[in-house]
Amino acid sequence: MSTAPLSSTDRTRLGRLRERAGTDRAVLHEILDTGRVCHLGVVIDGTPRVIPTGYGRAGETLYLHGSTGAASLRGGARQEICVTVTHLDGIVLARSLFHHSLNYRSAMIYGTPRQVTDPAEKLAGLRAITETLSPGRWDTARRPNGKELAATSVLALSLAEASVKVRQGPPGDDEPDYALDVWAGVVPVRQTFGEPVPDPLLREGVPVPAGLASW
Amino acid sequence: MSTAPLSSTDRTRLGRLRERAGTDRAVLHEILDTGRVCHLGVVIDGTPRVIPTGYGRAGETLYLHGSTGAASLRGGARQEICVTVTHLDGIVLARSLFHHSLNYRSAMIYGTPRQVTDPAEKLAGLRAITETLSPGRWDTARRPNGKELAATSVLALSLAEASVKVRQGPPGDDEPDYALDVWAGVVPVRQTFGEPVPDPLLREGVPVPAGLASW
Repeated sequence: MSTAPLSSTDRTRLGRLRERAGTDRAVLHEILDTGRVCHLGVVIDGTPRVIPTGYGRAGETLYLHGSTGAASLRGGARQEICVTVTHLDGIVLARSLFHHSLNYRSAMIYGTPRQVTDPAEKLAGLRAITETLSPGRWDTARRPNGKELAATSVLALSLAEASVKVRQGPPGDDEPDYALDVWAGVVPVRQTFGEPVPDPLLREGVPVPAGLASW
Repeated sequence: MSTAPLSSTDRTRLGRLRERAGTDRAVLHEILDTGRVCHLGVVIDGTPRVIPTGYGRAGETLYLHGSTGAASLRGGARQEICVTVTHLDGIVLARSLFHHSLNYRSAMIYGTPRQVTDPAEKLAGLRAITETLSPGRWDTARRPNGKELAATSVLALSLAEASVKVRQGPPGDDEPDYALDVWAGVVPVRQTFGEPVPDPLLREGVPVPAGLASW
């Protein structure tokens, strides 16, 4: 586990709320490793597009994948992108509406991704994406064949330029408002997994993998 | 409830997976009204930035807010932005890794937002944002005063150009893979709210608002 400080560039130095900036790579890794979906920002024809998609981390590299035909990924290998992963942890209810807020942990990665062409790295990237989305499946489901690999584009994005923002804890109100008879506190928010629902076409007798219960 | 079809422009017409495109404004509204956080995409110095933030809807307008000092909002009123709201509903486990997927509902809104200057609309926008984030609080907590309103920037984005993508249901595998002894199905994902945690500085005797229980 690396504890080197995160990079400091114009856009990763937070202009506001500096106390919410994390400086520990371990926090960055934890946010990425426990997420399921990122929001990928690309610029197409000069305007922004934000696309929810899967991702995976291997060391200091973030992997993204998609169809070789997807416009968002075609542009992505030639220009800068931004990948944001957000965990919503709570709704912060203050006495004043002005101080209502969110408890969250978010990571933003900036950079120009590299199209992965090396077959071994492509598999490693797909493995990282699979294991982030559905831990344990790489060793359970059928691995991609040549045709499927050819139809899949994998991009690698260095974690070199990254920032982390975290807010946790109770609301912070202005001093006079503490006298108000208004309930204040935090409503915790969690992402939970339900009971696995078998495919109606599942062969009889195939058991639910033990690993799914631990998600 | 409007049932007019969503707009069709180059970027809202889906290039791929056309069957996942929703065409009903009611679905768009439902995705927006049941979310808590959007991902706001802006272009700063030619590169994309994706920022998690609160939002609210009133009719066919989406409202965003932030500090008047926030770089993301300063730029936003002069240029196109993209706002994406995503609900992750399930992890789709297929027999092949290639067909692993996500069940989700997402909405993307494109446009150049308008800086809200009319005091009545500014309040209406903040009310929409408050009620999306924390239903019931507008009538409970202290409303913003003049100084707080002056420090808050509100942007209005028309829902005119929007697209909806939805995937639900079991995995779709290639025909030969249905013979494999691999468990397939969906692990449902939900966002759940925990027991409200009172602010340690809460005055004694202030009860938890009844509305919080219904989140």
